[in-house]
Amino acid sequence: MQNFKFQNPTELIFGKGEVEKVAKKAKEFGENVLLTYGGGSIKKFGLYDKVISLLEAENINIYEVGGIKSNPRISSVKKGVQICKENNIDLILAVGGGSVIDASKAISVGYYHDGDLWEMVKEDGEFEKAIPLGTILTLAATGSEMNANAVITNWEKKKKLGVHGTKYPNFSILDPENTYTVPENYTVYGIVDIAAHVFEQYFSHTDSTPLMDRWAEDILKTLLESSAKVLEDPKDYDARADIMLAGTMALNGFVSMGKEEDWASHAIEHEISAIYDIPHGAGLSIVFPNWMKYVIDEGVEKFAQYGKRVFDINDEGKNEKEVALEAIKETREWFNRMNAPANLSYYDIDKNDLEIMAEKAVESGKIGNYKNLDKEDVFEILKMSYK
Amino acid sequence: MQNFKFQNPTELIFGKGEVEKVAKKAKEFGENVLLTYGGGSIKKFGLYDKVISLLEAENINIYEVGGIKSNPRISSVKKGVQICKENNIDLILAVGGGSVIDASKAISVGYYHDGDLWEMVKEDGEFEKAIPLGTILTLAATGSEMNANAVITNWEKKKKLGVHGTKYPNFSILDPENTYTVPENYTVYGIVDIAAHVFEQYFSHTDSTPLMDRWAEDILKTLLESSAKVLEDPKDYDARADIMLAGTMALNGFVSMGKEEDWASHAIEHEISAIYDIPHGAGLSIVFPNWMKYVIDEGVEKFAQYGKRVFDINDEGKNEKEVALEAIKETREWFNRMNAPANLSYYDIDKNDLEIMAEKAVESGKIGNYKNLDKEDVFEILKMSYK
Repeated sequence: MQNFKFQNPTELIFGKGEVEKVAKKAKEFGENVLLTYGGGSIKKFGLYDKVISLLEAENINIYEVGGIKSNPRISSVKKGVQICKENNIDLILAVGGGSVIDASKAISVGYYHDGDLWEMVKEDGEFEKAIPLGTILTLAATGSEMNANAVITNWEKKKKLGVHGTKYPNFSILDPENTYTVPENYTVYGIVDIAAHVFEQYFSHTDSTPLMDRWAEDILKTLLESSAKVLEDPKDYDARADIMLAGTMALNGFVSMGKEEDWASHAIEHEISAIYDIPHGAGLSIVFPNWMKYVIDEGVEKFAQYGKRVFDINDEGKNEKEVALEAIKETREWFNRMNAPANLSYYDIDKNDLEIMAEKAVESGKIGNYKNLDKEDVFEILKMSYK
Repeated sequence: MQNFKFQNPTELIFGKGEVEKVAKKAKEFGENVLLTYGGGSIKKFGLYDKVISLLEAENINIYEVGGIKSNPRISSVKKGVQICKENNIDLILAVGGGSVIDASKAISVGYYHDGDLWEMVKEDGEFEKAIPLGTILTLAATGSEMNANAVITNWEKKKKLGVHGTKYPNFSILDPENTYTVPENYTVYGIVDIAAHVFEQYFSHTDSTPLMDRWAEDILKTLLESSAKVLEDPKDYDARADIMLAGTMALNGFVSMGKEEDWASHAIEHEISAIYDIPHGAGLSIVFPNWMKYVIDEGVEKFAQYGKRVFDINDEGKNEKEVALEAIKETREWFNRMNAPANLSYYDIDKNDLEIMAEKAVESGKIGNYKNLDKEDVFEILKMSYK
């Protein structure tokens, strides 16, 4: 086990009807709230009206940045920072999925940043100060509701960057019912994203972490069961709750205690969605099983363990490599059963862009720790993802 | 899944040599530190000298409360509060196991309490203010290093009480090497205590929490493996680290998310050790398997699941009750293999006291949620524990 530090101060408020508590929570921070949200779905399904009326009942002054897109743009961040500066905002309240929360995190630290905000994102430093942030999560996926990371896209520069060391949300309200109306494809992309977060931490050479390995496998096993249930019945409360909790637990620092992490597949996917704006989870569904095949010899035993514990693969009469390959096949089949895309050709992607993506993925150096990948490696994985 | 709130702000600093960071951490809180510790072992094995010299090198003023006993006494708490009042203490630094940390938590909130401190413990309220608290853990057991609970004993009144809602430690330094010198019997009592914490949360009627169930089972599975290794070699770093991490994760709110908890066995054990001052983990080793037998019909299926997942019991050709009973037997045998006591008669306990213990256990009402136990139930479990 590696030495590690862990601290996660976010307050989770989890369960049916908990959104009712939002105004009382907001009031703890002050009177002026910047409400951030995405497209029309929170308006369509009534959550927007509900939040507004709860806040108004407590005489909270509401400012808004709506229309935050998935793969959130630096332009939304700039707009948010400006509103904060003009209106003495006490709390940013993000109502949405990871993109809305990520943009809100960037606003919360951007407020205290002098100079260009894209440069701030590029520097990726530790941020000292931030406007307090609350979230109401509407999509189980990124884990952003309980971590200090954000991913921001600069559309003009066709670059998507992770910002670490922003602030943890002060509180996050997770009502599984708020995910009932997520369309099937986005529910699936979210599930794949959660699984991918676990993979990035699980496939690690610091393997003397049996508890964290098992906890990671448990998240995957729970997802495997709940994903089948939720595709059967999108209003299965327990399945939605299990997926939501799994999403939060997958990327809040719990399962990475004492472990080296990888994150190459995320870096590769970011280059795809920075150019083509495809859903992050869809990109991961395409890339991850190919990454697994490409790096399998780094950890045949680990891939076999994954297969046996998560997919209950019977290893009788098989060698370890066969079990490992079967585990990767099971992963692909699980994603296929959920209709998550398997191939970059699913999107209208120009094959000639693959090399550009590979180049951009490693522009700050090799990526990944399980196998440290150079441009040729990434290009190979992208070509495997295109067939 | 039940609705729940979760927030745990403690900073964990985990790993070999991390104690070196203590003075820099302490300095973040101020110049005046109250050092709290137990018997002689931290002096005997050099940790005391090390901490003192690290603190002195940063010109920190050190005050001390030593000699804090297991099943910590209200008298140590009173002494600590007095020193804090006289010396403007900025940080309490607890170096020891759960008893030292628990006493320190009571000091940290007791400082702000007007009136009798035993009354404060009895009231068991939410505490608004506390002196900051750091810990250097030397025994994997109670989880007190990352929760807001404390257990305090009033020796004159022969009463041991849990205090909830004290403050979380601000930081906890967990170096597994600091547990190398824990004697075998106390290592074992710690392991039993950790397992018992998991049981109290795992055996629950809110069973629609598959992720938390699995996380709980995997703490037990990790303990089962690591306990064998550590009894073989007390300086097995990975095994000590796994047990230490398991202890912290077992009672920091993680595995109880969305669950009703039980805690009857702890309440029963507290009555035993309040009169006879036996080690808490030893008492739990005696009581818990008997509690399991007594309440088995509340959750035959759950006990069977526990047996299959934790002890890999093969259920072929067995009915669920048989598997459940085998699981309890496996629990007893695991504790026996570690030489944890199985029977109250192991200690010089007067059988006539059992009824008094039963009476005191329920003096504020029935205990436990899995099966709600009255005096007769508790008396029965105690009699089963005496045979």
